[in-house]
Amino acid sequence: MGKTVLDYDTVALDDEHDALVIIDQTKLPGDIELLHLHTAKEMWDAIYLLQVRGAPAIGVAGAYGIYLLAKQIRADNFDDFYIEFVRQKEYLNSSRPTAVNLSWALNRMERVCLLHREESMDSIIESLKEEAILIQQEDIDICRRIGEHGLSLVKPGDGILTHCNAGKLATSRYGTATAPIYLGEERGYHFHVYADETRPLLQGARLTAFELQSAGVDVTLICDNMSATVMKQGKIQAVFVGCDRVAANGDTANKIGTSMVATVARRYGVPFYVCAPTSTIDWDTPTGGEIVIEERGAEEVTEMWYEKRMAPESVKVFNPAFDVTDADLITGIVTEYGVAMAPFTESLAALRDEIDHR
Amino acid sequence: MGKTVLDYDTVALDDEHDALVIIDQTKLPGDIELLHLHTAKEMWDAIYLLQVRGAPAIGVAGAYGIYLLAKQIRADNFDDFYIEFVRQKEYLNSSRPTAVNLSWALNRMERVCLLHREESMDSIIESLKEEAILIQQEDIDICRRIGEHGLSLVKPGDGILTHCNAGKLATSRYGTATAPIYLGEERGYHFHVYADETRPLLQGARLTAFELQSAGVDVTLICDNMSATVMKQGKIQAVFVGCDRVAANGDTANKIGTSMVATVARRYGVPFYVCAPTSTIDWDTPTGGEIVIEERGAEEVTEMWYEKRMAPESVKVFNPAFDVTDADLITGIVTEYGVAMAPFTESLAALRDEIDHR
Repeated sequence: MGKTVLDYDTVALDDEHDALVIIDQTKLPGDIELLHLHTAKEMWDAIYLLQVRGAPAIGVAGAYGIYLLAKQIRADNFDDFYIEFVRQKEYLNSSRPTAVNLSWALNRMERVCLLHREESMDSIIESLKEEAILIQQEDIDICRRIGEHGLSLVKPGDGILTHCNAGKLATSRYGTATAPIYLGEERGYHFHVYADETRPLLQGARLTAFELQSAGVDVTLICDNMSATVMKQGKIQAVFVGCDRVAANGDTANKIGTSMVATVARRYGVPFYVCAPTSTIDWDTPTGGEIVIEERGAEEVTEMWYEKRMAPESVKVFNPAFDVTDADLITGIVTEYGVAMAPFTESLAALRDEIDHR
Repeated sequence: MGKTVLDYDTVALDDEHDALVIIDQTKLPGDIELLHLHTAKEMWDAIYLLQVRGAPAIGVAGAYGIYLLAKQIRADNFDDFYIEFVRQKEYLNSSRPTAVNLSWALNRMERVCLLHREESMDSIIESLKEEAILIQQEDIDICRRIGEHGLSLVKPGDGILTHCNAGKLATSRYGTATAPIYLGEERGYHFHVYADETRPLLQGARLTAFELQSAGVDVTLICDNMSATVMKQGKIQAVFVGCDRVAANGDTANKIGTSMVATVARRYGVPFYVCAPTSTIDWDTPTGGEIVIEERGAEEVTEMWYEKRMAPESVKVFNPAFDVTDADLITGIVTEYGVAMAPFTESLAALRDEIDHR
């Protein structure tokens, strides 16, 4: 597995052939397959089925998508054009309810329409194209800057844990949570990265471990329930995660399991950082309580996502079969002689005495 | 899937055919297949490969196993017999390093040998058989009593979360962590049970969800990284887990991920109970720091355990795609404009002002 496998952008515009081109992320790491999307239905499906995923990447895909759909609109006047544009926009926007970037990008595109409403159709279309390209360029720039800021929080040789995939596959280059890692790699920081596999769809195993390994980063795949163990062992100096939506008070919606990583990070004194482009900050949502959480189908948990292979060939794995729950976390120990409550040094000794004297 | 599928004991002795009979737990829930084990190698493999698993069940299997192997020993005197007995015992004992029950049961069997050393070989063998049967009967009795004590900690209609499988498949009937659940079911408590799938080997999905569903218990399968979400939603009133070894201070070794469940349970004010037969309490181990943690192969994480299907047909699943990390768990939010530190209500507002005034 060389370093060249991800040279293609996650999301790209093929304007000549009226196509939105994406890497089908549901086929990774087994196959690197490009999809050429032309219709609104194809784009909707690709977002809904997570063939393109990651909040910033979805935003870019939405922008290129609505531009391509706008090109197809046949209308004699702006009002007819605009009605159809909004209809297509709302349709695309319905594909993922939790991520804010999709609606953010689509709203930016709509504003371009309205700003240029007095101009010719060709001119409006050209402006939409420029805006979509700008959204992608801004994404690349933003990720790099997030990388710089994130890098200032860690030291060379640090262990870094990440959950899900907020990597280059989720954005345009660098990623968000991975930006400090990629930037550090360029500068010889040599981080030791632990990637949660991220059940049920295994974005960590299939995507993060894949893209980091492809880039030559030292990455170890763990199951989601192992992050406490690697933290307790002192292997993690910082957690970086992405986010789908940040409420005004800082509450952060991100892939299922993120709050558990944060909870154990707090316990083990590991700083927990959310990497968030401001486009993911939803100023109109006061707290996380107002964020709609998507529930998905049972088969994602009960059936395998993609064939049998779940991770890249030869990826490193740390796989302890058990962990130790410290006594101070345990409320009581139920035995055939009753329940021993904390402190256990005393209550278990008392229990032993009781058994000995029967 | 009816209620009769688990009528066979997890571990049984077929003395007439010199066989240790187990349900092959690696084939569940797809196939219910009995294995008849005759040689030490077959028994060692069955324990190592987790075909029989669960600390108490392994203890019972070890007891029946060493009895059957003792029967096969051809020796003219006790010393020759004993040397071979100990050799076989040490071999069986090497199959799982973390669980204490195996060595505990094998040591009990060895003491029977020594206690009856002056008697005939036939008499020693008979005493070994009686001891092994006693170990299993005690296990059944212990589990039921754990169930009684556990039941006193919860109320009818409560939501209960469990991790891994400390159920009837792990023991002789009732299980340990499931004992309060089964006993409550008999008495009309109607618990709502949430079963962590328990990566990487999916004992929760394949075994716990299977055996509880088979018994008519209301069980919902979740991924390990979803337990914080169901606790936050108020769906869980108690956590019951089994254990492989409890240190003298109460530190508890159990399936990987258990400490993460305990950590989030503490955060959400959910009592966390360890169901522990005293045979799993290791009085000679002062703290969890001295417990050897088994590390297992990478392929358990990267490859599917068993075909494509990972859970029983029609099992209920709760599958939110994201969760919300409360702000107080987040150390900083990294944006392209810098890192916002807690409290975020202030720092994000300041950040917004800064952006507005550019």
